[in-house]
Amino acid sequence: MAGVSVDEAMRRAVTLAARGLGTTSPNPVVGCVLLDSDGTVVGEGFHAYAGGPHAEIVALAQAGERARGGTAVVTLEPCDHIGRTGPCSLALVQAGVARVVIAVPDPNPVASGGAATLRAAGIQVEFGVRAQEAEVGNIAWLTSMRRGWPYVIWKFAATLDGRSAAADGTSMWITSEAARIDVHALRGTVDAVLAGVGTVLADDPRLSARNLRDGTLAIRQPLRVVVDSSGRTPAAARVRDGAARTWIATAAEVGAGPDGRVDLPALLAELHRRGVRAALLEGGPRLAGAFLAAGLVDKVVGYVAPKLLGAGRTALVDAGVTTIADAIDLEITDVTQIGPDLRITALPRKREA
Amino acid sequence: MAGVSVDEAMRRAVTLAARGLGTTSPNPVVGCVLLDSDGTVVGEGFHAYAGGPHAEIVALAQAGERARGGTAVVTLEPCDHIGRTGPCSLALVQAGVARVVIAVPDPNPVASGGAATLRAAGIQVEFGVRAQEAEVGNIAWLTSMRRGWPYVIWKFAATLDGRSAAADGTSMWITSEAARIDVHALRGTVDAVLAGVGTVLADDPRLSARNLRDGTLAIRQPLRVVVDSSGRTPAAARVRDGAARTWIATAAEVGAGPDGRVDLPALLAELHRRGVRAALLEGGPRLAGAFLAAGLVDKVVGYVAPKLLGAGRTALVDAGVTTIADAIDLEITDVTQIGPDLRITALPRKREA
Repeated sequence: MAGVSVDEAMRRAVTLAARGLGTTSPNPVVGCVLLDSDGTVVGEGFHAYAGGPHAEIVALAQAGERARGGTAVVTLEPCDHIGRTGPCSLALVQAGVARVVIAVPDPNPVASGGAATLRAAGIQVEFGVRAQEAEVGNIAWLTSMRRGWPYVIWKFAATLDGRSAAADGTSMWITSEAARIDVHALRGTVDAVLAGVGTVLADDPRLSARNLRDGTLAIRQPLRVVVDSSGRTPAAARVRDGAARTWIATAAEVGAGPDGRVDLPALLAELHRRGVRAALLEGGPRLAGAFLAAGLVDKVVGYVAPKLLGAGRTALVDAGVTTIADAIDLEITDVTQIGPDLRITALPRKREA
Repeated sequence: MAGVSVDEAMRRAVTLAARGLGTTSPNPVVGCVLLDSDGTVVGEGFHAYAGGPHAEIVALAQAGERARGGTAVVTLEPCDHIGRTGPCSLALVQAGVARVVIAVPDPNPVASGGAATLRAAGIQVEFGVRAQEAEVGNIAWLTSMRRGWPYVIWKFAATLDGRSAAADGTSMWITSEAARIDVHALRGTVDAVLAGVGTVLADDPRLSARNLRDGTLAIRQPLRVVVDSSGRTPAAARVRDGAARTWIATAAEVGAGPDGRVDLPALLAELHRRGVRAALLEGGPRLAGAFLAAGLVDKVVGYVAPKLLGAGRTALVDAGVTTIADAIDLEITDVTQIGPDLRITALPRKREA
């Protein structure tokens, strides 16, 4: 293979990293490309699953002696601690690489320090190449590590007029099978799925990630979390089936907010402690309102069906807004047609203090 | 100009016709391209405004003697009656064209017969070239002429969670200035703008088509119609200002339906009688619900703002749907980002009887 630039190698590393999305948590996704001193690619790797080898280790194993004197191009600062695997910083030192180019520094206080270790060993270290792309690829993990609670995605499904159920309470199905398949894929990318006990009582959802065509379960299942202040989840609720782990989060266990309900910041801190980096909030409307009112939603994914109801439950209730000037502002980042429905992705804008 | 095919000429004629959109009503838009016997374009025209010359007359005037023995390519069957202008069928006969190619037949019982007149004069007449494109270009006029009541577009503005106002009733502004400018352009393409008296009492809208930057009025103003069963529109309501004609449509004048309110089919029939071919229904939610429940909406244009409210007036109320299986199904035909907002255009699917 002809020589490639460090910039080109980083682009490749970001693409490699993305292959791990959904299976590396609680670890980040990481990609690594090793170049020899001529700029020839001599090794590639990505972190595929938690407990498996890190991207750098995979790439170094491929390169063998050819790594000596070369450049390691890696999307995230190499780890410096002994976790389930040895520190990547030492492996790079031992392999004799001359230079390490990093997109984004590691915000994890336990794992960071890799750059310092590399520099102490005389290796040239640079940061910032294609940092924005690498940041976007790891946004949930980076966000959650930096602040200590999970990246929260609020997902809703509604008609074009904003209804999540008809007047008689029926809601199966607002959106198409194609959209529901997409939701199950989305569940496969997060560590936890959250729902309020009201939704459990009304709809009895499974909240597992499944193949909707044949009903088979995805290999990796997010933790199912029922936000259930007073412990009303029925013993026979589907969310308690054996498909995945389930946590009924009560106010007694988590702590209560001023309203006597489960304290949401405490809930998120506990989820972080349990290794949850990305969480999908699936409803109901009042729990979504509480999360949004508290500024705890990082991303909104709305599945909008080309249907009109004119009555019935709305997708969102009590978000702490009483007048138009205080509306929660979003920025739409993507609109995709999925079957007959639209998937609208949006990010809340930072609110002025 | 080199010779062009009849198909190519029709494509050009459809494009020309579209230039008249918004100014020809109660007439249709029409485009005409004249080819001489070698297929050279010798005349072009479109119907620009009601009372002005028809497309064929404009094109014939350009062509002069070169039209003799040639082909007239026209998007709509040439008229056969003496209205504000003479019949186009006779003008084509007198000009000596040998062949007339028409996209769509004229459904207007008063004006049709053009093809028969042409054939009686020995002219070869063909129908159907690029008929679908020409049909789409004239959809409001054709639909209204075929069935005797206006083509109704329901426009709404709402947040991503379906609210048209905040809890305290404030709604200025849900959508961006860019979206509101687009609404004013939409008003400029219809013959009437409809609103319920509730909206007039709550928001006191002008319902005129204006340049939002400098406040100047568009040259052509749609008729403003307040659906006001018991005549509650205040004397000082802005909708009664001098910017455009206004009709306060009461149950006493139009007739009442079983619920004592203005009978909507009777309202639409009267609007048709007054020359309204396309009408824009702007709210409120209950009037929109009544139109939708009665199957009287032909097109939905929703301006969806990237905002969340969680409370307040919804965009649609009482559309006659109580269970999810009876939801009003739409087909999304266009999604366009306008400023930060989305404009979603959709067509109601025909409902099974």
